[in-house]
Amino acid sequence: MMIQTIKPSITLVGAGPGDPELITVRGLRALQSANVVLYDALVSEALLEEAPASARRLFVGKRAGRHRLRQEEINRLLVESALLYGHVVRLKGGDPFVFGRGHEELTYAARCGIPTRVVPGISSCIALPELQGVPVTRRGVSESFWVLTGTTRRGALSADVELAARSTATAVILMGMRKLAEIAACFAAHGKSDTPVLVIQNGSLPDERRILGTVADIAEKVAAAGIGSPGIIVVGEVARLHPGWEAAVAALPAPAAMSHQIQQS
Amino acid sequence: MMIQTIKPSITLVGAGPGDPELITVRGLRALQSANVVLYDALVSEALLEEAPASARRLFVGKRAGRHRLRQEEINRLLVESALLYGHVVRLKGGDPFVFGRGHEELTYAARCGIPTRVVPGISSCIALPELQGVPVTRRGVSESFWVLTGTTRRGALSADVELAARSTATAVILMGMRKLAEIAACFAAHGKSDTPVLVIQNGSLPDERRILGTVADIAEKVAAAGIGSPGIIVVGEVARLHPGWEAAVAALPAPAAMSHQIQQS
Repeated sequence: MMIQTIKPSITLVGAGPGDPELITVRGLRALQSANVVLYDALVSEALLEEAPASARRLFVGKRAGRHRLRQEEINRLLVESALLYGHVVRLKGGDPFVFGRGHEELTYAARCGIPTRVVPGISSCIALPELQGVPVTRRGVSESFWVLTGTTRRGALSADVELAARSTATAVILMGMRKLAEIAACFAAHGKSDTPVLVIQNGSLPDERRILGTVADIAEKVAAAGIGSPGIIVVGEVARLHPGWEAAVAALPAPAAMSHQIQQS
Repeated sequence: MMIQTIKPSITLVGAGPGDPELITVRGLRALQSANVVLYDALVSEALLEEAPASARRLFVGKRAGRHRLRQEEINRLLVESALLYGHVVRLKGGDPFVFGRGHEELTYAARCGIPTRVVPGISSCIALPELQGVPVTRRGVSESFWVLTGTTRRGALSADVELAARSTATAVILMGMRKLAEIAACFAAHGKSDTPVLVIQNGSLPDERRILGTVADIAEKVAAAGIGSPGIIVVGEVARLHPGWEAAVAALPAPAAMSHQIQQS
C-alpha cells in the first residue's frame, strides 16, 4: 500500500469580473492543480470546470445581506481542506485584495503554518467600465481614480465619498447600489449635478446591464430600470466617453425643453 | 494564385505588471492569433514569444523622458498595420486604460473604421503591493484606495495628492518617483509622518526591489538604495501589513534611542 503524503498549500486566486477568459494564466494553472476549490457567488461555472474532475468544490460565498458562512468558518475550512487534501484554491471574484477578505484568509492560513500565495485578478473597478469603452483615467479628462465602498462596515455612507465628490478623481464605487441616491446627492451638493454616471450590473457577463445618466438623474433611471445590488457606479467625466453616451442623453429630452414643448402645444 | 483577404482588427491587450503568467487567458489567445504585435517597454520578452513566429513585432515604447514615437505616429502605425497585415495586438504593460493612452489609440482606430476591442490587464496599482502581501483595502484599516499620477501633464504635483493626504484612502501613486520628497512632504503636512510607505520597483520581476519606510524617512531610504524611476508608491496603514514591516522598522533604531545610546557610551 502506498502512503500518499499530503502537502498542504493555499493559493488565493482572483477569478476576474465574471467572464471566465479574464482569469490570469497563472490563476488558471493553479485551478488546474487544485485538490479543493472554495469559491464565491461571483465565480463562473465554466471556471469551476477547469479544476480536475476529482477536485472537491465547495461554495462558501456570501450574497449581500445573506451570509452563508461566517468568515471564521471559511478560514477554518480553508486550513482544514489544505491539511486533509493538499492544494486548496480559494477562488474569489475580481481581485482578492480589493474589498474581499482575502488578506484575512491568507493571514489566518499562514499563522497555521500553511504555505500560501496570492494570484491577482482583474478587478471589476477598472475592467468593467473598460469593457464598455470607458477608461478610469484619460489624459485631459481625469488624472486619477478613487475606488470606494458605498457602505462602510458600520452601514453608513463612507466619509470618503464626500472627499471624492470634491476631488477631480473618477470615483468608482462598489457595494453602493443601495445608497445610490445618497451618493448622488453628495456629488450634487458639490456642484456636480451634470457629471456623467455609469452604472453596471453583471459586468462582462451575457446578462450585463448598464445605465448612463448624470448625477442628477441616475438614481431615478436605475430605479426605473429595476437594477438592484450588486452593481458598480462610476462617477466622472470619463463616463461621457462611453460609446452609448450621445444616445443615452438624447433618449430623454431635457426637462426644460420638455415643459417648453408642453406649453406650446 | 490565391488572393488573401486582409481582415483588419485591433486588440488592445493589458500585459499585466511584468510577470508573463499574469496576462489573462483572453489576452494570451489574442496574442497567439496576432499578425502584428506593437509593444511597450514594460512588456516581457516571454510574452512576445507567444505570438506566432511569423508575426511582426514592433517596439513602440516610451521610456520616461525619452519618447521613441509620438502618440500620433503610434496611432497611425496601428491602423496601417491592421490594414496591411490583419490582426494587430497592441500590448501594453499593466492595464491599458490606467494612465496608458490606450483609449486614445482605440478611439483613433475606431474612427478609421477598424474593428477594435480591449482586453483588461492586471494593473500594477493593485497587484504589485498584493504580490508583496499588502492589500490596497483591508477591513478595519482602509476602506478605499486612490490611484494617482505623481506628475501631471504639466509636470506639477497633482492637486489630488493633497486631497489624498487628507483622506483615509490608501494612496497608490504611479509615475511619482521623481517627486517622492514632495509627495512625502505633502502627507507629512497633514500629520501623516508616521504613516507607512511601500515603494516597489520592477514589481513581479526577478529583479524586483522594495523599500519600506514611513512618510518621514521614505525619500531618504529610497535615495540611499539608489532606486529611481519608474516605481510605484503606496502610502497608507495597509503597508504595515507587509511581512517585512517589523524587520524594516527594526533595522534602524529610532533617532531618539540612537542618540541616547551614543550619550551613554
